[in-house]
Amino acid sequence: MTPLPPLPALPYDGPAELRARFERVRLFLCDVDGILTDGGVYMGQDPETKRFDIRDGFGLKLMQRQGIKVGWVSHRPSAATAMRAEELRIDFVHQARASKVGAIEGILAEAGVGWEDIAYLGDDLVDLGALRRAGLSVTVPDALVEVKAIVHYVTRAAAGRGAVREVAELILRAQDKWQSLVAEYSE
Amino acid sequence: MTPLPPLPALPYDGPAELRARFERVRLFLCDVDGILTDGGVYMGQDPETKRFDIRDGFGLKLMQRQGIKVGWVSHRPSAATAMRAEELRIDFVHQARASKVGAIEGILAEAGVGWEDIAYLGDDLVDLGALRRAGLSVTVPDALVEVKAIVHYVTRAAAGRGAVREVAELILRAQDKWQSLVAEYSE
Amino acid sequence: MTPLPPLPALPYDGPAELRARFERVRLFLCDVDGILTDGGVYMGQDPETKRFDIRDGFGLKLMQRQGIKVGWVSHRPSAATAMRAEELRIDFVHQARASKVGAIEGILAEAGVGWEDIAYLGDDLVDLGALRRAGLSVTVPDALVEVKAIVHYVTRAAAGRGAVREVAELILRAQDKWQSLVAEYSE
Amino acid sequence: MTPLPPLPALPYDGPAELRARFERVRLFLCDVDGILTDGGVYMGQDPETKRFDIRDGFGLKLMQRQGIKVGWVSHRPSAATAMRAEELRIDFVHQARASKVGAIEGILAEAGVGWEDIAYLGDDLVDLGALRRAGLSVTVPDALVEVKAIVHYVTRAAAGRGAVREVAELILRAQDKWQSLVAEYSE
Repeated sequence: MTPLPPLPALPYDGPAELRARFERVRLFLCDVDGILTDGGVYMGQDPETKRFDIRDGFGLKLMQRQGIKVGWVSHRPSAATAMRAEELRIDFVHQARASKVGAIEGILAEAGVGWEDIAYLGDDLVDLGALRRAGLSVTVPDALVEVKAIVHYVTRAAAGRGAVREVAELILRAQDKWQSLVAEYSE
Repeated sequence: MTPLPPLPALPYDGPAELRARFERVRLFLCDVDGILTDGGVYMGQDPETKRFDIRDGFGLKLMQRQGIKVGWVSHRPSAATAMRAEELRIDFVHQARASKVGAIEGILAEAGVGWEDIAYLGDDLVDLGALRRAGLSVTVPDALVEVKAIVHYVTRAAAGRGAVREVAELILRAQDKWQSLVAEYSE
Repeated sequence: MTPLPPLPALPYDGPAELRARFERVRLFLCDVDGILTDGGVYMGQDPETKRFDIRDGFGLKLMQRQGIKVGWVSHRPSAATAMRAEELRIDFVHQARASKVGAIEGILAEAGVGWEDIAYLGDDLVDLGALRRAGLSVTVPDALVEVKAIVHYVTRAAAGRGAVREVAELILRAQDKWQSLVAEYSE
Repeated sequence: MTPLPPLPALPYDGPAELRARFERVRLFLCDVDGILTDGGVYMGQDPETKRFDIRDGFGLKLMQRQGIKVGWVSHRPSAATAMRAEELRIDFVHQARASKVGAIEGILAEAGVGWEDIAYLGDDLVDLGALRRAGLSVTVPDALVEVKAIVHYVTRAAAGRGAVREVAELILRAQDKWQSLVAEYSE
């Protein structure tokens, strides 16, 4: 193996006010349809199928390894979501046609953190209440206009195509936890 | 929860003549393949699978909640369509290789409204008759050139990627029924 | 129903030399993967699944209704292809790891036409022999560079997203068979 | 059949230093998710489904026919990957949550070649070690920024949409093995 120059270990380079929000995140919560997927539901076979992304899943695992718990909060129960959550061993999974704010408050109590300590990613009307409360609120480029108007950050990656991974990396970089991962995998 | 400034409640801001058409809609009818989907049919497994979009489905539910009935009129029967229609509790579902104009006239009689009271979305030759009659005719960016030449409105969103949701929002905004939904979900 | 001005009945408006090729087509043959699909094969479940397009299928049916027979020539047998071909009642279906030129010559004999009377659509190395012989040779924007260098026409629509439909319409317009279809469906 | 001028037989036309790397490849190894697929995993049905691309598969077969062995090295076991590998008769298939560098060293020993003789394609953290060692390291446009910073070549085609095929062609062109394939299929 030819010795190579050290790999770049890119730190977070966004605005300072936003960096403080990424730094504070202790719990990562997100919507499922339209965030972890592109909003598509493949029907005909029972149960339905949904497309998840490997990079998003790996981002969630990297946060867990660095001590950040992760959870999914969906308004529409789906066996496809449960199958993916089980594979990734998601810490908190909530699927029910009930208030997301109420569901998240239950998770906060269980995790022992407050709204100001969480990141929340959502894209539609049902996410507005949670997005208004989260310490770091994030949405995707294709979201409802009223959602985009109130969030702290809009991802460059599309929903289901790395949006969750992008936020996971930004959090880990802002918390100076990314460099050690790059170094570890470079060997 | 930090108090936030009120969310924007964006009204309809299109041309007045078009606004009158969105305002009048009492019944929302659309084609399925190429409108609620991107035209794709996944074959190999029996029955076939089709990709529907969560945002479109939610838009249909929002119209129903605000008193606008919804229906699907397809020229090609498919179990995938029936499965999605059942989940969303679509009010009128017509799947048959027959005249769409005839099928819609049956729905109009049952619903007690006229052609001038409906929105119809379609993209291909088989939709021309209905599009020429509907009070509000809509198609997608990828539609047949002869269809695009005669409709009142072409969506910005692609078929199967929010085209139906876009029209649902435009109708609800034009009828001043959107603001209350935003307010409700923002709590 | 409000009387509307007559629908546009757009004729073929391309170059005259190319028009002569579209005019002459009596038999429409095409590759499957990368022409009728975007080249994707969904694996994991057995049998595999492939995404076909409603608009392409309708274009094939419209040609048949106007007296042009259609056939598929694939180098890679797949149950998904057979399922779609059966639904559309494709006139000639050839799926085998053998010479495409030989397969097509068998079809020509059966149909009683010559190479100069057919359109052929293909995108890869295995299509070169047939593309060099067909009276009208067509490929897609994403095809092999050596294929694009020798065909008469490259579609604007992508493979699996209307490329076959585009050629079907061009043939029917060039043969003055499109206007009657538009008129029929406009009633 | 009208005699046509000879087909173009395009040679490799990139930089000389890079050409030497393509010329030297005796063994082609790649990651699966995010290289042979676009990173998507379709869940809900068991086992999961993944989308592979016909053009990529054909590129792998063409390399094998020209004497270059091929292998896949994945960090995430999947029945979908095994199904596709079996169809294509991939020479070396490694699927395990273990070090990719260790797995590849086993393959190198079995194949009797060194790191300098292989091409390796990968897109994420787990590929960094192998990418730093391979004689020709390649990634896709959508890869991790730290990966793009160290590879010899970034494909123009997207992952799962011809990226592997692009590299296969570049190798065969640089080794002057492409022209005979074009000639053979043109008859």
